[in-house]
Amino acid sequence: VGAALNSVVVVGTGLIGTSIALALRRQEIEVFLQDRDPRIARTAAGLGAGTAGEPPDPVDLTVLAVPPTAVGPVLEQVQRRRLSRAYTDVASTKHAPHRDIVAAGCDLRSYVGGHPMAGRERSGPLAARADLFQGRPWVLTPGPRSDPAVQDTVEQLVELCGGIPVVMDCQEHDSTVALVSHAPHLMASLMAARLTALPQTGRFLAGRGLSDVIRTAGGSPQLWTDILSSNAGPVVDILDQVALDLRAVATALRTLHASRGGLDERALADLMELLGRGNAGYEHWQTNEA
Amino acid sequence: VGAALNSVVVVGTGLIGTSIALALRRQEIEVFLQDRDPRIARTAAGLGAGTAGEPPDPVDLTVLAVPPTAVGPVLEQVQRRRLSRAYTDVASTKHAPHRDIVAAGCDLRSYVGGHPMAGRERSGPLAARADLFQGRPWVLTPGPRSDPAVQDTVEQLVELCGGIPVVMDCQEHDSTVALVSHAPHLMASLMAARLTALPQTGRFLAGRGLSDVIRTAGGSPQLWTDILSSNAGPVVDILDQVALDLRAVATALRTLHASRGGLDERALADLMELLGRGNAGYEHWQTNEA
Repeated sequence: VGAALNSVVVVGTGLIGTSIALALRRQEIEVFLQDRDPRIARTAAGLGAGTAGEPPDPVDLTVLAVPPTAVGPVLEQVQRRRLSRAYTDVASTKHAPHRDIVAAGCDLRSYVGGHPMAGRERSGPLAARADLFQGRPWVLTPGPRSDPAVQDTVEQLVELCGGIPVVMDCQEHDSTVALVSHAPHLMASLMAARLTALPQTGRFLAGRGLSDVIRTAGGSPQLWTDILSSNAGPVVDILDQVALDLRAVATALRTLHASRGGLDERALADLMELLGRGNAGYEHWQTNEA
Repeated sequence: VGAALNSVVVVGTGLIGTSIALALRRQEIEVFLQDRDPRIARTAAGLGAGTAGEPPDPVDLTVLAVPPTAVGPVLEQVQRRRLSRAYTDVASTKHAPHRDIVAAGCDLRSYVGGHPMAGRERSGPLAARADLFQGRPWVLTPGPRSDPAVQDTVEQLVELCGGIPVVMDCQEHDSTVALVSHAPHLMASLMAARLTALPQTGRFLAGRGLSDVIRTAGGSPQLWTDILSSNAGPVVDILDQVALDLRAVATALRTLHASRGGLDERALADLMELLGRGNAGYEHWQTNEA
């Protein structure tokens, strides 16, 4: 449908932006790097991710690798500068940025939203890897007004990075990532928050069970506050259901504790029921993982 | 202090019991295998874990590899049969079994409680591995009336299995494992329980973030109901604190959702504060892991 992708501006040279730039450079695409902090763009350039600064002419595609709440204002600005013929972003939520983009009066034809499902615990350009997106899904959320040629350009970007394009509706994307990414991140944080007072012996006793559950809790609070607040509705719907289950488990355990070893059948059944549903959810997910 | 450990009865030939038996057989210790279901003991024997059945004479040590609520009744029974000169168990909680043992009028001198900090998602003798305990901590909880010679025998068991003996008080053990094992297991189950309705696309988008958080949710609901109910007090104390944090996060997200992109500074600060505590707990645990 569209023309070949030859030149790209990456705005925001953190982990994701720099990883995209490195992947594109491997394919000999011309890449320009920009960041609110020019030193970070120069760091990315020093890693071989492209040239820091403004392109001499409009490029084929601008990739906004900025936090969700920055997508609207930054898109408005780069479209005003006519930086490229196509625009995409990589924000972890899609509905809120889309609402901001409409509110800012952006051109909707030249924009297709995106979200590569890849990341690392570390952030910043020094954590970037050219193969970060290899074999990973990369969601695209074209709107009714998106130009098919622009969608084609963004799909070329995904394929050049080794990702697998998955077209979804904004709200379907947001409720899905709330379930598979944002709520699990909060569960990890909620558990990790309890460990600040863990004594030395406790750390020694902990095994893979704990380390796996809390692994993502090391992520940047600033970035995650931005992600969660821009997907607040779908995430809070899940947390409300978790809170109901949590209350039922706590009630059952309190009953069992008060009975001091006497078996309260109802409480045991409630506990077993929740654990059984955890089993069912785990198996539902696992049988379809392969 | 005590005599060498030459012969052992393992009562309960599931994952842990059979793994202990296999490790002891590697060291040429004589092992007898017993289970409520004799077919399971014969399965373990078929794997080379020892001889199914009763020893001709009292052995050095009986290992009770039964669920926490079974430790008291089974210890009373095997002591009555004078099966060995020393007794230990491997239950994941230590205070409730100890209370049951006292209530059952068991001999406290010949018993030292134990808990090897090792496991697998799979259960049963076929999942057993001789190296399951290699390099892992193995908590021992001698009481004031435990005979030092018995403690010495149980420490020999731990070392023959490649484990690292860690002596702790029952209640210190229980509050520690509530934090590093039981509460994380419930967090995994609570999250996994939300996935039963996850559509195909959602499974495709899920990455390591989700799979790590829910990994332990595949564990046996029967076994975990037993573990959690026998450590209900320490676990519910942690869940109550999690529930408070969860409520604060949900309130913040609800406020941010209602403000539809308008930034509510207080809600953002509340969210960032929880994520920051998650970071702190993660780092506290991680810096001391090595």
